[in-house]
Amino acid sequence: MKSKFILSIFGIVCAISVFAQDANNIQMPELLQNQSRKTINIPDILGYQTLKCDFHMHTIFSDGIVWPTFRVNEAWNEGLDVIAITDHIEGNPSRKHVGGDNNSAFEIAKVRAREKNIILIHAGEITRSMPPGHFNALFLDDTNALNKQDWHEAFDEAKKQGAYIIWNHPGWKAQQPDTTKWWDIHTELYEKGMIHAIEVFNEKEWYPIALDWCVNKDLAFFATSDIHGIVSEMYDLKKYHRPMTLVLAKERTENAIREALFANRTIAWYGNYLAGKEEYLKAFFEAAVEVQLYEKVKKGKIYIIKNNSDVPFEMQTLEDSDFTIPANGETIVTLPDKSKSSFSVKNLFIAGTENLVVALKLK
Amino acid sequence: MKSKFILSIFGIVCAISVFAQDANNIQMPELLQNQSRKTINIPDILGYQTLKCDFHMHTIFSDGIVWPTFRVNEAWNEGLDVIAITDHIEGNPSRKHVGGDNNSAFEIAKVRAREKNIILIHAGEITRSMPPGHFNALFLDDTNALNKQDWHEAFDEAKKQGAYIIWNHPGWKAQQPDTTKWWDIHTELYEKGMIHAIEVFNEKEWYPIALDWCVNKDLAFFATSDIHGIVSEMYDLKKYHRPMTLVLAKERTENAIREALFANRTIAWYGNYLAGKEEYLKAFFEAAVEVQLYEKVKKGKIYIIKNNSDVPFEMQTLEDSDFTIPANGETIVTLPDKSKSSFSVKNLFIAGTENLVVALKLK
Amino acid sequence: MKSKFILSIFGIVCAISVFAQDANNIQMPELLQNQSRKTINIPDILGYQTLKCDFHMHTIFSDGIVWPTFRVNEAWNEGLDVIAITDHIEGNPSRKHVGGDNNSAFEIAKVRAREKNIILIHAGEITRSMPPGHFNALFLDDTNALNKQDWHEAFDEAKKQGAYIIWNHPGWKAQQPDTTKWWDIHTELYEKGMIHAIEVFNEKEWYPIALDWCVNKDLAFFATSDIHGIVSEMYDLKKYHRPMTLVLAKERTENAIREALFANRTIAWYGNYLAGKEEYLKAFFEAAVEVQLYEKVKKGKIYIIKNNSDVPFEMQTLEDSDFTIPANGETIVTLPDKSKSSFSVKNLFIAGTENLVVALKLK
Amino acid sequence: MKSKFILSIFGIVCAISVFAQDANNIQMPELLQNQSRKTINIPDILGYQTLKCDFHMHTIFSDGIVWPTFRVNEAWNEGLDVIAITDHIEGNPSRKHVGGDNNSAFEIAKVRAREKNIILIHAGEITRSMPPGHFNALFLDDTNALNKQDWHEAFDEAKKQGAYIIWNHPGWKAQQPDTTKWWDIHTELYEKGMIHAIEVFNEKEWYPIALDWCVNKDLAFFATSDIHGIVSEMYDLKKYHRPMTLVLAKERTENAIREALFANRTIAWYGNYLAGKEEYLKAFFEAAVEVQLYEKVKKGKIYIIKNNSDVPFEMQTLEDSDFTIPANGETIVTLPDKSKSSFSVKNLFIAGTENLVVALKLK
Repeated sequence: MKSKFILSIFGIVCAISVFAQDANNIQMPELLQNQSRKTINIPDILGYQTLKCDFHMHTIFSDGIVWPTFRVNEAWNEGLDVIAITDHIEGNPSRKHVGGDNNSAFEIAKVRAREKNIILIHAGEITRSMPPGHFNALFLDDTNALNKQDWHEAFDEAKKQGAYIIWNHPGWKAQQPDTTKWWDIHTELYEKGMIHAIEVFNEKEWYPIALDWCVNKDLAFFATSDIHGIVSEMYDLKKYHRPMTLVLAKERTENAIREALFANRTIAWYGNYLAGKEEYLKAFFEAAVEVQLYEKVKKGKIYIIKNNSDVPFEMQTLEDSDFTIPANGETIVTLPDKSKSSFSVKNLFIAGTENLVVALKLK
Repeated sequence: MKSKFILSIFGIVCAISVFAQDANNIQMPELLQNQSRKTINIPDILGYQTLKCDFHMHTIFSDGIVWPTFRVNEAWNEGLDVIAITDHIEGNPSRKHVGGDNNSAFEIAKVRAREKNIILIHAGEITRSMPPGHFNALFLDDTNALNKQDWHEAFDEAKKQGAYIIWNHPGWKAQQPDTTKWWDIHTELYEKGMIHAIEVFNEKEWYPIALDWCVNKDLAFFATSDIHGIVSEMYDLKKYHRPMTLVLAKERTENAIREALFANRTIAWYGNYLAGKEEYLKAFFEAAVEVQLYEKVKKGKIYIIKNNSDVPFEMQTLEDSDFTIPANGETIVTLPDKSKSSFSVKNLFIAGTENLVVALKLK
Repeated sequence: MKSKFILSIFGIVCAISVFAQDANNIQMPELLQNQSRKTINIPDILGYQTLKCDFHMHTIFSDGIVWPTFRVNEAWNEGLDVIAITDHIEGNPSRKHVGGDNNSAFEIAKVRAREKNIILIHAGEITRSMPPGHFNALFLDDTNALNKQDWHEAFDEAKKQGAYIIWNHPGWKAQQPDTTKWWDIHTELYEKGMIHAIEVFNEKEWYPIALDWCVNKDLAFFATSDIHGIVSEMYDLKKYHRPMTLVLAKERTENAIREALFANRTIAWYGNYLAGKEEYLKAFFEAAVEVQLYEKVKKGKIYIIKNNSDVPFEMQTLEDSDFTIPANGETIVTLPDKSKSSFSVKNLFIAGTENLVVALKLK
Repeated sequence: MKSKFILSIFGIVCAISVFAQDANNIQMPELLQNQSRKTINIPDILGYQTLKCDFHMHTIFSDGIVWPTFRVNEAWNEGLDVIAITDHIEGNPSRKHVGGDNNSAFEIAKVRAREKNIILIHAGEITRSMPPGHFNALFLDDTNALNKQDWHEAFDEAKKQGAYIIWNHPGWKAQQPDTTKWWDIHTELYEKGMIHAIEVFNEKEWYPIALDWCVNKDLAFFATSDIHGIVSEMYDLKKYHRPMTLVLAKERTENAIREALFANRTIAWYGNYLAGKEEYLKAFFEAAVEVQLYEKVKKGKIYIIKNNSDVPFEMQTLEDSDFTIPANGETIVTLPDKSKSSFSVKNLFIAGTENLVVALKLK
């Protein structure tokens, strides 16, 4: 009950909107949170679209606590492009009162995904004790077919379906309490082409040694939420995005994602850390950062440095002049003339203990 | 890998904790949100415990999107004492792949409720077109028995089980698009003792006329979330609690809650509004507010007024000197000597268009 | 005391950073807020740079409570390009223990402004009772010269110095308690070329009738904070930016700003509202919004609409299908084929009671 | 222009509040932040009132950037009881255009302090190179008298005025770059009764070794903000309070504070850390925490543990069962029967490297 009319008061013409406090129904929108889709600000690089993807999550069709459509909604709200629901395959859905099969979550969610323009990858999680541990298989036709007694058969079936296979949380303490170890069985799987990528980050932990494996064995870097509950309750989304895998794809389609993954064009993003190939991290940095010479002074040069991305950059120099280029912001720094022009970016990792080194270029 | 040892450096003895950035597993707790139980700061009044209750919510066993145990967890995090899961009874659970029956959500959630010290009321929602509309029945033994073709039989069964029955969202526009109307059928139910309470607030809207019904017909005031999704995503919990019904109970037990409800000892709390009997709101205000004379000045007296509750109070005077006593805070106000000592509290309602009037008493 | 060394433990090589909890000095950066410059996301339009400006603020050199350099720092943190310190001219600085003159705040702040790459406009506030009220004069050489007994002389001096003159808060209740009135004296000033702009928004209030004056008399639209305290404490900067005037300038220099102001190329931005000439608001909307046809369905067409700016757009249609295009986000809407292609944008004002009307164009 | 009237529409009587969107002046309170006083939730202990105090801060009368009255306002908003403005004495106020003397900040602020019920201590900072470094002198009559060439004379004068003297930031790297050293000169001052307390925390850093000095030499523990800018911009007040010194006073008066300080009844509070005498921390913990036996189970006993304070407690056990009792919240923990009943509280310090040990007591 809201109407507009015109009053003439004191000779002034006023337009008045009446917000009626009526006895029947008063809305209180001030109690509610805004639930619209937000843009993740990440540059496209090297001629590719940088797609925001989370390839590991659960629903009530295994041990998650939400209906599959909710996974699409929360991904849409957060600005993601791509998700895979990866419910545990073996013995699931086994929850009392939950029927269906290993394809059900995908079938239910795909309608919502179409409505929300989210690309939903058909997937499942091979869930075994160590070795070999847990693995996600993406791009499946029939997840049920992977539900085998012998895990070798599950991998064979995955390969048969053309799956892309990720070794999940290799340093998870429940399975590798003291170390993050690469077992002989992983060599066997790797040599058969049954490991394409590794989660260097899972949920809330990362494994530096796994970065070295990615580099040395030419595997793709993944970061995933492995969310069972609610993303917005688990993570501090005021400060960070959920962990995700950035995929450098030729276009925003499932086929292009598959092509990009098999070509290892990924960056793992968790907290303020990026982990990936030097080539990709360098392109990312250069696309995000803009440097402008502001002024020459006695002790060196003053630069204005802008960052057009959601990732801050923590710049380390040999001199005692570390600085941060804030996310979606800028900083003004004075650098001594004798400063070497290259910096170590402390939150960008190209190997387990090696940071990206960049030069600042004037644009 | 964290250890403590003692180093002697430069002749100074230092205790050192080593946080190893090891290659195997690095935890990133900074990404996570704190998920502990928070205290809701509301005074106990009139010799009763003021229990924080939400008697209306859904799970995947009707059209909600979460597993029943999650409803317990989120209530515990938010500081509630009591919840009722009120999945729609008729034709549910009808979701593809979800089996079970009308008692399943209760059965699944009660184990978690016991672990979390949440009192879980066995309940269900009678879901009919208007009239009579939707009604929650609390304290059921067997919700399945209410799944009848004829709604009269559902009410009869509820009564037979000793249920406490609430008329839900009487002004919901989907069922009462233009008004919030009390139908003859409601008179019939009321006279048969089949309506004990009314939701004066549901989800994000309230119905002032329903407050008048509560007053005139001696029914209890309820406010509920009717949550289908996630409470922390729906509501702005930085500013408000979820809508809830405060129950003045002799102790924190299911029996005491039942006794309190049948005795109409409730207050509806939604946003910063309280709605209820004058007697209860007055006791609430007086228990929360402490007034101290600070200084006499020419133009009147200066008071320090403290509020020891999560509800702010918006005080209105006849003079142009309205002020707010902030939640969990205090204000300093100068009141003219000629000021009448009574104030209208604009956010406390004892009827649809009538605010509580209070006097400030020096303690 | 932080060092890196390599340990070999259990045959695994680990890189370890030691964060010593030493007895001498432990830093607690977790207590602190991040104080870096943030980017305001607003499109450049019509070939101009859209500069973010606040032309009204105070320091301890009149009745503000901060040192002038702080005004530069807070503007830099918030992402502004341009500020003017406009301390009251008459009888100021009159604060006990504060000396200096009407140029002192500018002189003190300009060094910091240079360091922070903020453009600082030399200015002052002519502060008189109504009529004529308060006016800011920008681009002064010597603010002291405006400190005259007779306000006519102050305006004459301002004009002599080539000042750009804004009528401040014309509807401020302290000076115009019942109306927002244009007095004969304002006609006189206007005809002498001594009013170039009007604050249609000041601090926390706006004056729709002043928008009509801007339109009818060809004056520039201004929004300002008139901040005396701390911007981040006054405004909810999580939800909004401080009120500001967007200036469409040929480049980011003081001269270009002067040229743009005298050419009336401004947009007033306050909360989620924009007020300005139809031409500029239309260009703003079109630069920020991107529409993509997603799918044809029976009941119409589904569009994905992105908004690449910090201003949401509240779209109103004749049919019952209002929607919001969220700031830095996107929405998916279904529009009936019969839908007229033009929308009223309820938060964009081209006159006191007239919204911008736009068409959605496929890109 | 807001009025109430009664309309009869469609036969329903509605009470209507008209919020006129008038052409003259529209208020936008939604842009603003709430600036009321919040309660700091800390228990009174051992028969004393626990006063919240910050004894170190600056204004424009030395190198701060705000007017003295603002220090009172921000302290009031944050819920403090007591502040001391401690502008640097030597050569100050030396800022261009700022006159006055070393008593001016106190004189200006005391009127506002009276209005806001904040206890303002007359004070100043003796600012010397190391040794002896910086010292605050509280309870002065005339700060000017401490402005001496020779620092010995400044201390003599402070003692003559009955001052309470605190050694500020003893481990500040600008003065003690490598260590936190107690010099012979400090022994001399100490033996003359010219050091009563030490800042174990200042601004954003703490000095564990200084806790040992407090214990061994029977000095009071202080934590202070040493704020020069704006407290709400410096600190993350969503998560923490500003650093402060809790004073256990017989009443809320200046005299009682003086008595308490000379009796060493203080606790330093910074972030989530408390540092102080075992006796006081133990009383604090016991007053804040309430333990209830919930259930006996096979593997031990389940307890509900409530914390009625703004300080969380991080409980460490010998077994692998550390847990946190959240601030203003509660936790449910299962403790093995064999568990020793005493816990180390990791965020409560009774010496530089020694935590408080407590027993949980059933109430």
